[in-house]
Amino acid sequence: MTADERTLRVSAAAAEVGADWALLTAPETVCYATGYEVPIETGPSPFQGGPPIALVGRDGTSGLLVTNIEVATARQGYATTVLGYEGFSNQRQPQLLPNYLRAMKQLMRLLGGVSGVVAIEGAVIPFALTKLLDGQFSQIVDLTTVLTRARATKTSREIEQLRRAAAIVSHGQQVARLAQVEGRTELAAFGEIRAAMELMHGARMPITGDYITGISRTAQCEGWPNERIIRSGDPIICDLSPRAGGYWGDSCDTLVVGEPSPEFLALYDVVERAMCQAIESVRPGVSAGRVASEVSPIIEASGYDNPLHIGHGIGTSFHEFPKIVMEETAILEPGMVLMMEPGACREGVGGARLEWMFEVTETGNRVLTDFEFSLA
Amino acid sequence: MTADERTLRVSAAAAEVGADWALLTAPETVCYATGYEVPIETGPSPFQGGPPIALVGRDGTSGLLVTNIEVATARQGYATTVLGYEGFSNQRQPQLLPNYLRAMKQLMRLLGGVSGVVAIEGAVIPFALTKLLDGQFSQIVDLTTVLTRARATKTSREIEQLRRAAAIVSHGQQVARLAQVEGRTELAAFGEIRAAMELMHGARMPITGDYITGISRTAQCEGWPNERIIRSGDPIICDLSPRAGGYWGDSCDTLVVGEPSPEFLALYDVVERAMCQAIESVRPGVSAGRVASEVSPIIEASGYDNPLHIGHGIGTSFHEFPKIVMEETAILEPGMVLMMEPGACREGVGGARLEWMFEVTETGNRVLTDFEFSLA
Repeated sequence: MTADERTLRVSAAAAEVGADWALLTAPETVCYATGYEVPIETGPSPFQGGPPIALVGRDGTSGLLVTNIEVATARQGYATTVLGYEGFSNQRQPQLLPNYLRAMKQLMRLLGGVSGVVAIEGAVIPFALTKLLDGQFSQIVDLTTVLTRARATKTSREIEQLRRAAAIVSHGQQVARLAQVEGRTELAAFGEIRAAMELMHGARMPITGDYITGISRTAQCEGWPNERIIRSGDPIICDLSPRAGGYWGDSCDTLVVGEPSPEFLALYDVVERAMCQAIESVRPGVSAGRVASEVSPIIEASGYDNPLHIGHGIGTSFHEFPKIVMEETAILEPGMVLMMEPGACREGVGGARLEWMFEVTETGNRVLTDFEFSLA
Repeated sequence: MTADERTLRVSAAAAEVGADWALLTAPETVCYATGYEVPIETGPSPFQGGPPIALVGRDGTSGLLVTNIEVATARQGYATTVLGYEGFSNQRQPQLLPNYLRAMKQLMRLLGGVSGVVAIEGAVIPFALTKLLDGQFSQIVDLTTVLTRARATKTSREIEQLRRAAAIVSHGQQVARLAQVEGRTELAAFGEIRAAMELMHGARMPITGDYITGISRTAQCEGWPNERIIRSGDPIICDLSPRAGGYWGDSCDTLVVGEPSPEFLALYDVVERAMCQAIESVRPGVSAGRVASEVSPIIEASGYDNPLHIGHGIGTSFHEFPKIVMEETAILEPGMVLMMEPGACREGVGGARLEWMFEVTETGNRVLTDFEFSLA
């Protein structure tokens, strides 16, 4: 079996830092390396001895360590070898950490010849696991930065998966536009939108984003829905970002219930112009900072607050390298997938934000999102 | 300010393992020590250099380290000192790990006299953080087991918080009973129930549990909702477990759409009898294994599969010590809060499970859940 291109990129990142093996423990990089969508939405599992581990060799051999209750799902990914350990039992409380570490030793035996230099993610790998590595490897190095950059340009399979996630959020935005929300709470409106996206996906999804309504809430630009009742004249910022099949979608639309105020229309118009500029600005060969410097002044010159970044990468994490901010020197490359999300707000008027997903192409960009924005 | 009783229990657990300070990095123990409900539902934050840290001294002094975007919420807890570091910026990509480690050093200075022996959770603390500790402390020990046991009996404030979580899931179960689900998908039905609980809580919540319908799905006993359309005659297992204000609720009810089959009624009757036995069995001074041994035979003697544990503790994690399983020797004590959830299933018939929350009292138990079960 040929290794997935992502697994091979992990191998290459390990090689770049002088390592023979990469050992990954962050949910987003384990997913990247193995195709296993690590569960995140209820926190670290109480049935695990440590986080799922992906171990990737120079030749693209890959091992994945998970609890016994995850094995079947984990096998649907592209790891060469999937090993489970007893994390859940209906008879006893398993010795989670000992089981985890013992299984990790077994996984290294199964993969064969696991030795030399190992590259880890120092900010996330548990201490107890590194102690095990001391006996197995001659040296431990860190690959976080190199792998973060390697993941920024997407493979064709990743573009497909991001396009699918974009289709789900586009559906969510269409439902948000059609929903009768006046007199309902933000939570109820958001619940309807989320349920529609989950139904399209066929399963529950973790989701972040914002659903905020009214002048003072939208002027804060960010927030999860609460029990506020939506009224006529309210602006709505609806930012939908669920993970579907391991890849995050993202999107933002701004609506008004009934008639927008002239002041809000003027603010919205600025954001729309900023978004049109983003469509022009995203292209290969320019820096992320350059793109931000082309978009931000449209908001700031109009005198509005510009509280957020202009954009960010997206993939198995909902915010990835590169951020589209003034001080970022990273050069945009074909294959990068970027969320562009200019926003503006002002106390007493409210806030607006628009967000689409862009693939950087050889000559410019391609919009992967499939909803239109317009206050009319 | 007097320290919260939970913070003092962390101090005592540290003392028990010979440590001067406890350094916690698991979401459930950070919440326990500081009252900060660590966000979990979208995975580890891409804006953090490492997980939130709680640092607790022998005298109950406590420090909490979080990103700049979490500080305001974190201050609503009961940590003595809350420190933020730049994790999010709209101008640059912050140096997350260096910022995190630098802020941790600052937090230790702010707390004063941080030295001696430090107790950690070895299975979760990131490697990069332990390297920092090497320079600050004379010795590193582990307090996971001791703290896990110390958290098993709840303080009166915790009982209040668990009772509140139980009220939210009881409301969810009432909505589940009233919902017209025939012809709808599991996801749509679950979405309605979840939205009702979120509205009662006033905010989104992470949630686990099960929502499965039909004979073959319920015979598997567990699963998240999918696009299956609910039909007349379907059994439904509805297990609702959201986290509200840092504490998890849990609950399970079993319903049938329309008329249950005689075979399903017989199976349900066994589960109901097992639950009635649980109400009798949960009392102080007996082992968890003894309780399991009083409940399990009711299911197994009837010839059904008994695929799950009989119960488990609950608190800032949805599964805590002690598990109510045959091999568990832990003795039940007043103040423990236990979920009891006997279930049974059989291929071709389906599955049923019931679950209530119990507080172990001086003389027996008190049910904290507020919904009735009945197939009639």
